[in-house]
Amino acid sequence: MKLYIANQNYSTWSLRAWVIFERFNLNAEVMKLSLFTPEFYQTLSEINPAAKVPALVDGDIKVWDSLAILEYVNDNYLNGAAWPTDKAQKAKARAISCEMHSGFMNVRNELPMNCRALRKITLSEGAAKEWARIDDIWSEQMAAFPNGWLFGEWSIADAMFTPVVMRAKTYNLPLSDLANQYKERVLDSQEISTWLAQAGEETDIVKEDEAGEPI
Amino acid sequence: MKLYIANQNYSTWSLRAWVIFERFNLNAEVMKLSLFTPEFYQTLSEINPAAKVPALVDGDIKVWDSLAILEYVNDNYLNGAAWPTDKAQKAKARAISCEMHSGFMNVRNELPMNCRALRKITLSEGAAKEWARIDDIWSEQMAAFPNGWLFGEWSIADAMFTPVVMRAKTYNLPLSDLANQYKERVLDSQEISTWLAQAGEETDIVKEDEAGEPI
Repeated sequence: MKLYIANQNYSTWSLRAWVIFERFNLNAEVMKLSLFTPEFYQTLSEINPAAKVPALVDGDIKVWDSLAILEYVNDNYLNGAAWPTDKAQKAKARAISCEMHSGFMNVRNELPMNCRALRKITLSEGAAKEWARIDDIWSEQMAAFPNGWLFGEWSIADAMFTPVVMRAKTYNLPLSDLANQYKERVLDSQEISTWLAQAGEETDIVKEDEAGEPI
Repeated sequence: MKLYIANQNYSTWSLRAWVIFERFNLNAEVMKLSLFTPEFYQTLSEINPAAKVPALVDGDIKVWDSLAILEYVNDNYLNGAAWPTDKAQKAKARAISCEMHSGFMNVRNELPMNCRALRKITLSEGAAKEWARIDDIWSEQMAAFPNGWLFGEWSIADAMFTPVVMRAKTYNLPLSDLANQYKERVLDSQEISTWLAQAGEETDIVKEDEAGEPI
């Protein structure tokens, strides 16, 4: 398999797909493309006309979109192990994963992932409301699964929320104690150490993803 | 099961979840809530704090988000029949479904679903580009599966794109011949007849979803 991603400092959707390969030691060659370069568009448009990362090529099969890749890997390489086995928990894990996939527009727009930076920022009312919802999700799951991932064992829901943890760190966003436990859990993980080390080697600056004031 | 939806004239996400129940004759009580009323927020917030439609209550299990509901129904009531059986086709169906779920922001913002209306509208450059991508998806699939649904048999991908067909109709958007075949196929379906009949009984006007000029 070849997994196409973009700048690890900035690309949230890349991280969501990449992390499942790292978590389960799956064999994929990671192809990193610099955001918005001619090579980026050229390479990706041969995989999907939307020309977006992440994209996965598995033999003749091409999959794009982070959630579609996560579901594909789960179906074909993990025998379903990346969703909770309990029916009700699986339903809830899918619901919050999809809520993240299609929503939180203010958080996405106002707080670009920027792994290397530490910034001060003032949230709009919309972003603050979304952030409170994120805190609710994390703290509810940490109360249900103390010292675990969102659903005890690691799941696709964790893949979806991992880049949000990176935002919590960069912009030092307020979190309740329980939600903060989740942030620490993700930041302490081996895969995030690897991601941050690789992101740290990058020197590209993508202006539209630089938000807030340096502190 | 109880399926909570909003105004059928306007609510694209409601339609995406509703249509799978209709398509497979699944037994669910449909609970329709008027968009943005106090009852709407009150009822939904008891199911999920994001207070969004659609929402499904199945005994003790609560599922929200259209794609999560579609996957839940497929897993638990359809034995997987709502995705293509072929691995490569399933991967592609998930990719375009997820592409719709997280993207096409300009089309969503500029072209609200408005089943009862016929309108003239000028697309922004962004929306026109997205519309061309939708045409590509539909025509590519119609070329691969003549006279079928997007993947031959009806699938979750059709649920995701059904509200886009309603937009094509309301705003009379340009489509290539092959893509137009898909539009006609959806508009001729029994479930859309039912949806439109029910939408036609509604009298609420939601101002922010009224776009374009009457023709």
